[in-house]
Amino acid sequence: MTSIEPRPVENATYTQLQQFYAEHMSAIDDGEVERWLDTFTDDATIANNARPEPARGRATIAVVAHRLVAEARAQRVVHRHWTGMLQAVWLPDGSVQATSYAMVVETPAAGSPHLWRSTRCRDTLVRSGGRWRIRERYVRHDDVG
Amino acid sequence: MTSIEPRPVENATYTQLQQFYAEHMSAIDDGEVERWLDTFTDDATIANNARPEPARGRATIAVVAHRLVAEARAQRVVHRHWTGMLQAVWLPDGSVQATSYAMVVETPAAGSPHLWRSTRCRDTLVRSGGRWRIRERYVRHDDVG
Amino acid sequence: MTSIEPRPVENATYTQLQQFYAEHMSAIDDGEVERWLDTFTDDATIANNARPEPARGRATIAVVAHRLVAEARAQRVVHRHWTGMLQAVWLPDGSVQATSYAMVVETPAAGSPHLWRSTRCRDTLVRSGGRWRIRERYVRHDDVG
Repeated sequence: MTSIEPRPVENATYTQLQQFYAEHMSAIDDGEVERWLDTFTDDATIANNARPEPARGRATIAVVAHRLVAEARAQRVVHRHWTGMLQAVWLPDGSVQATSYAMVVETPAAGSPHLWRSTRCRDTLVRSGGRWRIRERYVRHDDVG
Repeated sequence: MTSIEPRPVENATYTQLQQFYAEHMSAIDDGEVERWLDTFTDDATIANNARPEPARGRATIAVVAHRLVAEARAQRVVHRHWTGMLQAVWLPDGSVQATSYAMVVETPAAGSPHLWRSTRCRDTLVRSGGRWRIRERYVRHDDVG
Repeated sequence: MTSIEPRPVENATYTQLQQFYAEHMSAIDDGEVERWLDTFTDDATIANNARPEPARGRATIAVVAHRLVAEARAQRVVHRHWTGMLQAVWLPDGSVQATSYAMVVETPAAGSPHLWRSTRCRDTLVRSGGRWRIRERYVRHDDVG
């Protein structure tokens, strides 16, 4: 039995991924669901530790995204998804596994900002159509044991 | 009519801008106003969605900066400006438009830290005198509709 | 008397250090103390403005780390150390001085996240055994005058 040490991505890819997450997260925070969906592959899945059965495919993910954007608007809050502490390694199939911290800052109209969510986000990303796209996402919410 | 897609900055510039913001924000948080002013052009402007009429020129910006530093000292709080989720594109005139999230963590003496501000910051930066400098800043405070 | 301006690290080193801090901080947050200790030199020291007398050497640092991990588990909280606003310069002896903001987000089981600590972290790092390692750390807690 052999074990292969995962190979960290080179600097250029690391910086590309930082830019990817900035585009990806600002799209959903701006309520631009179509632009956000474009950062996923068609067959992408999203799961988390509160609901391990994943949402499968862009159409299903779109429903969730539109609901989240509508809820934030109805509550008159602004969400800012911050990612940081990014680690990224090549997987044997040429995709990248990127692990990062993700938190959401929520600011109500005329109110003070507070932390709404703290999570760890593990994505598998592939190059597709000239850009990085998320094929698989698993979010671990810190408040869920 | 043609529309030109903005061109993202290359990796080297992206990393330079990350370093720029680290220097820029730590200067004001350390109360070093002169060092902070040096990260703006002489004719720089700053505006925000709570007060759209911009502060024009370093001398005017200096007055605001000295007041903010004095207020934090009088209240015995430490401010930490964090920027993240940086996106940067070249503008046709050779300047860079950089959009980032910016939040301020406030910590009172012998107290717990909390989020004081959550904003989106859009800067136009130019190379001048051997370094990046901000020519125009627009801050969108998340609590202001 | 001459003064030598510190030389900022080049982009490649800057990006390496970002990856270093992501590995370093996620190791302690995951409770993997041995992996975390491996990011220090054998003779590393850690001091802070609340207790200026440094902890000296990996064995001493290990005791503190195991206690912090055990306390978080006993209290059923998740800690996420975020670093940002990184500045890094070469020192004359070939080591790097890296200054960053570091905050800790604490999330209780079934509770909301909040900021637990806000600090500035100044590390001296050296290449050793094929990787970056911290030789000296000084943490300035923002709540301590």
